[in-house]
Amino acid sequence: MTQSTTEAIAALARSARIASRQLRSLSTAAKNEALEAIAAALTQRSGEILAANEKDVERGRASGMSAGLLDRLTLTEERIDSIAQACRDLTALPDPVGQRTGYQLPNGLKVAQVRVPLGVIGMIYEARPNVTVDAATLALKSGNAVLLRGGSAAKDSNEVLCAVMREAIAGVGLPADSITSIDAYGREGAQALMEARGLIDVLIPRGGRELIDTVCTTAQVPVIETGTGNCHVYLHADADPADAQRIVLNAKTHRVGVCNAAETLLLHAGFEPARDILQALSKAGVTLHVDERAAEIARGLPGVTAATEEDWATEYLSLDLAVRVVDSLEEALSHISAYGSGHTEAIVTASLDARAAFTEGVDAAAVMVNASTRFTDGGQLGLGAEIGISTQKLHARGPMGLSALTTTTWLIEGEGHVRD
Amino acid sequence: MTQSTTEAIAALARSARIASRQLRSLSTAAKNEALEAIAAALTQRSGEILAANEKDVERGRASGMSAGLLDRLTLTEERIDSIAQACRDLTALPDPVGQRTGYQLPNGLKVAQVRVPLGVIGMIYEARPNVTVDAATLALKSGNAVLLRGGSAAKDSNEVLCAVMREAIAGVGLPADSITSIDAYGREGAQALMEARGLIDVLIPRGGRELIDTVCTTAQVPVIETGTGNCHVYLHADADPADAQRIVLNAKTHRVGVCNAAETLLLHAGFEPARDILQALSKAGVTLHVDERAAEIARGLPGVTAATEEDWATEYLSLDLAVRVVDSLEEALSHISAYGSGHTEAIVTASLDARAAFTEGVDAAAVMVNASTRFTDGGQLGLGAEIGISTQKLHARGPMGLSALTTTTWLIEGEGHVRD
Repeated sequence: MTQSTTEAIAALARSARIASRQLRSLSTAAKNEALEAIAAALTQRSGEILAANEKDVERGRASGMSAGLLDRLTLTEERIDSIAQACRDLTALPDPVGQRTGYQLPNGLKVAQVRVPLGVIGMIYEARPNVTVDAATLALKSGNAVLLRGGSAAKDSNEVLCAVMREAIAGVGLPADSITSIDAYGREGAQALMEARGLIDVLIPRGGRELIDTVCTTAQVPVIETGTGNCHVYLHADADPADAQRIVLNAKTHRVGVCNAAETLLLHAGFEPARDILQALSKAGVTLHVDERAAEIARGLPGVTAATEEDWATEYLSLDLAVRVVDSLEEALSHISAYGSGHTEAIVTASLDARAAFTEGVDAAAVMVNASTRFTDGGQLGLGAEIGISTQKLHARGPMGLSALTTTTWLIEGEGHVRD
Repeated sequence: MTQSTTEAIAALARSARIASRQLRSLSTAAKNEALEAIAAALTQRSGEILAANEKDVERGRASGMSAGLLDRLTLTEERIDSIAQACRDLTALPDPVGQRTGYQLPNGLKVAQVRVPLGVIGMIYEARPNVTVDAATLALKSGNAVLLRGGSAAKDSNEVLCAVMREAIAGVGLPADSITSIDAYGREGAQALMEARGLIDVLIPRGGRELIDTVCTTAQVPVIETGTGNCHVYLHADADPADAQRIVLNAKTHRVGVCNAAETLLLHAGFEPARDILQALSKAGVTLHVDERAAEIARGLPGVTAATEEDWATEYLSLDLAVRVVDSLEEALSHISAYGSGHTEAIVTASLDARAAFTEGVDAAAVMVNASTRFTDGGQLGLGAEIGISTQKLHARGPMGLSALTTTTWLIEGEGHVRD
């Protein structure tokens, strides 16, 4: 990496730090006003945004980008409206900054922990212009400045979106440097961001496995790992048959390209409705990757193939499901412990003992009892907005809302107190 | 690094993981029984421990270890008693595991966030055998397994301490692999620990700047950065003179080798009692590293030297203090922002406006108002025990007690709920 890129990113990070000092002490009303200004500007300037996006989409199409990625990259008038609406929705959410808990010590010292913004947040993501607005506005509402690296595939869209947001917040008196794109510095800029120790407070990668692995193993700044979900649904011997079928179908087929979709089904040996459930999955277009015992249950169904060791570890993100028969809850837990990614694990059971053993034994961001894995989602759980789903254990675990973008300060007030 | 070290550390981490699964669901009573067993074993086997420690101390002395480090390395009957007492004190602390907050969604889903252990914790520290017991027992009380890398200088002591603790907990039915030393694998072992992605949940370095920097920039696993404190005391124009003098003296001289000691004094221009305060510091044996205006105030006092740019950034950990005169609270904030390490910053003032401006403007783990910086300490703040003082913003900030060694799981209970 060239020295000049490192210096350029450091300079941008320092400007973001200065902006963040102003953001720290803004009132909730002032932040909401800025969010409204962004929403209005996005709608007003949608022509400009769509024109820039068109360039990205054409470039993507020409370079043979997959249909799925192209769809994520594409903006429409309607999508811009919904992005603007999401900004407005943020104004209704409670502001975590300033929340406090406290107590007084026997020596008279008043002790409080006060919630404050993290400061400067780095985001690295791929080909999703909506994340540009999403990340910037969640950061703003929680009092943080952001440095955004949105990837070359969406660079024209991101450039205009950042310009629109910067002008909108400057128009209501906030520092433009609260929102900064570093896309112009390419991969070297991303690398410099990962190494900007002391200059940024946290780096959040959002995207595919490869991107996240690179950031987690390379970054010298604190990282929040997000997003990979190898989620299991375990149908216990005592599962209600109708619940079992509804939950498995929903977890697998409701939306396949997302991290909270189910990827492996664990069937308790002898669970009677298993055949009907596999049939329903097959009918829904799901390819079943089965172990030997599941193969017997699935015999004759279309779309069945033998599972290999690799299947247990695969996040398909498609209409594929690995299926294994287990003899006990303990065996289900062992399988999950060996192959799970710590995202979401579900059990369907009517047994209170099984429910307790499963929830005690599973180590994951979210554990579902008689509910679809698809509920691991900030919106579904009432957080109102989500910056990502953390699959690490530090700081935030599971869906991250506004308060995941804050930290605390110990505020200690004395009257000349010293230590003996 | 050799492949075999990587594999050996991975194997130890996997055994620790298995142990951590048992620890997860232990009752508080069972964990307390294990802590009592450790305390008893330390006292009973103090002869063995002292003999091993003697070897470390002799080696340290022979290799020219500094007096301060030798003191930290040395165990005595009395010190072992106080380490054992600290184990017993832990039994009285509330167990964070199992604490929950929750709510019910309009669709009937019951949502809870339940506090659970992190899992497997790695500790890298230097020449301090007391940390071996401290880290292992804090981890145990919070339901975690630990891998300990205590450094070659204390390897004989650590080996015996680990053996004593492993046997003690095995004696009450807990897995011995809850506590594992990796000292036998030397520097390569430490390196492998830092790269054990997916095998350990968090790595906590404790020690000098160099150790912490190495871990933070090298590790591929989540790290909690601890301990560097370039702490400031700002004497505002409206400070009570007696409070000001008492606080500055306490912050600088109460104990000099610790991260919450003051390293820079910021004097408001024209603050009358400044001369008396510098005189008192000088009399207490403090060398004052002064800027030009502070030099005028300090004229004629013994132990005064001109400050260089480097002084503002130095954590002396000795009877040295940098002193600078500032014209405004804003200038004090700028200085702290430029040179502070985000540990503890103090203001002495009788002005409510100054107090508010300072606490709003400073970005640090702890902010003291009319109190000594020395209060940033888990024991002092009522946490009961402390694994370290975090100077990063993610997960835990400031003194970290037992709950900093836990995370949460979302527990979502439905009755066949699926997403529309």
